[in-house]
Amino acid sequence: MLDSLRLLRQIEFIVEIDKLKQVLRQTFTTTKSRQENSAEHSWHIALMAILLLEYSDSDKIDVFRVVKMLLVHDLVEIDAGDTFCYDNDARKSQHERELQAAERIFNIAPKDQAKTLMTLWKEFEACKTPDSRFANAIDRLQPLLINYYSNGKAWIKHNIKRHQVLERNCIIEEEAPKLWDYVKELIDDAVQQGFLKKENFSRCATIHLRNYLCATSDVCLKS
Amino acid sequence: MLDSLRLLRQIEFIVEIDKLKQVLRQTFTTTKSRQENSAEHSWHIALMAILLLEYSDSDKIDVFRVVKMLLVHDLVEIDAGDTFCYDNDARKSQHERELQAAERIFNIAPKDQAKTLMTLWKEFEACKTPDSRFANAIDRLQPLLINYYSNGKAWIKHNIKRHQVLERNCIIEEEAPKLWDYVKELIDDAVQQGFLKKENFSRCATIHLRNYLCATSDVCLKS
Repeated sequence: MLDSLRLLRQIEFIVEIDKLKQVLRQTFTTTKSRQENSAEHSWHIALMAILLLEYSDSDKIDVFRVVKMLLVHDLVEIDAGDTFCYDNDARKSQHERELQAAERIFNIAPKDQAKTLMTLWKEFEACKTPDSRFANAIDRLQPLLINYYSNGKAWIKHNIKRHQVLERNCIIEEEAPKLWDYVKELIDDAVQQGFLKKENFSRCATIHLRNYLCATSDVCLKS
Repeated sequence: MLDSLRLLRQIEFIVEIDKLKQVLRQTFTTTKSRQENSAEHSWHIALMAILLLEYSDSDKIDVFRVVKMLLVHDLVEIDAGDTFCYDNDARKSQHERELQAAERIFNIAPKDQAKTLMTLWKEFEACKTPDSRFANAIDRLQPLLINYYSNGKAWIKHNIKRHQVLERNCIIEEEAPKLWDYVKELIDDAVQQGFLKKENFSRCATIHLRNYLCATSDVCLKS
């Protein structure tokens, strides 16, 4: 017999998450000048994870779990909004705001599914397992790509510097090192084309800075 | 050694599919009055398939294949546009237009991945396997839900009648019959609230009509 209360909770959850389509990110889509929203971003990275799996440095990836994480990871933004990754003040309160959002939103679904959603989201945030680390790498690569292919519009708007993008994306070097040469070229070309500001450091200092930032970044130390 | 030509094709494909975010559907999002695009629709149904798997009438569903189909199934709209499901003229040329689009778009990716994408898309379109039939059922349920929860805005705009929605969604009855009672209630309530027009048929004639339309519908006989 159909548990209709269960179905109604599932439907309520499905209707609730429709709101993610209204959450705007800082990145612009590559065609037409409008900001991307978190629902379409989630679609894009889910497909990217499938297409780019071969570049993972781990042989332990369950790509379906990665896809599920990526489909779910931004739902908290329905309440907490998108936090711009280079806004250090907003990022201080990000985890607390998102945890509250996760409690409210996931618990609209039936208990067992709410628990699964919470587990996936927490694993993504903790960024410690192979699945979640690869998911985070893909979640970084997508805005890098569409920032570059929208002529650096968001980077220029926010006066972003090369070392900030290197820091933000160092997880790609760690989890998908085969992609890193390409990413570095893209960043160098973005500087060349004026999409990104160059630091006034020597090349050597830049490398040291990047290594330092990568080692101390809180990107993967949220929880 | 990294096959950089392969990576470049993958990146080109990933950037190309960003265009799906500009393809507008007839459905409106439930909050704010704007049309939904095909990328965010694809995200929504991928998550719905995972959440509603238990309602499938088949025990042979590979839900990851369903999710992949749903993430990929609308990519052809980048070239072919979204074809409104109640526009019978446009639907006549739909398959031909979409096949051409599939050939161009999928072949941007490396050969092996292009083949996989084409296989998934064709399977979804043919709508004969358990995976593709469940995927199609979910692809129907989502617009039904958001049409209802956006106060029937798209239905009212296009003067849609109850029997058209019943016809369009009969695959839900076949593939996820446990959801059908809920769907029928939703449709009846949509008529009650004036979101959908009621036919001037007797109840009995309506049932016969629905059965006839379901049996002759080309929804699942595209290829």
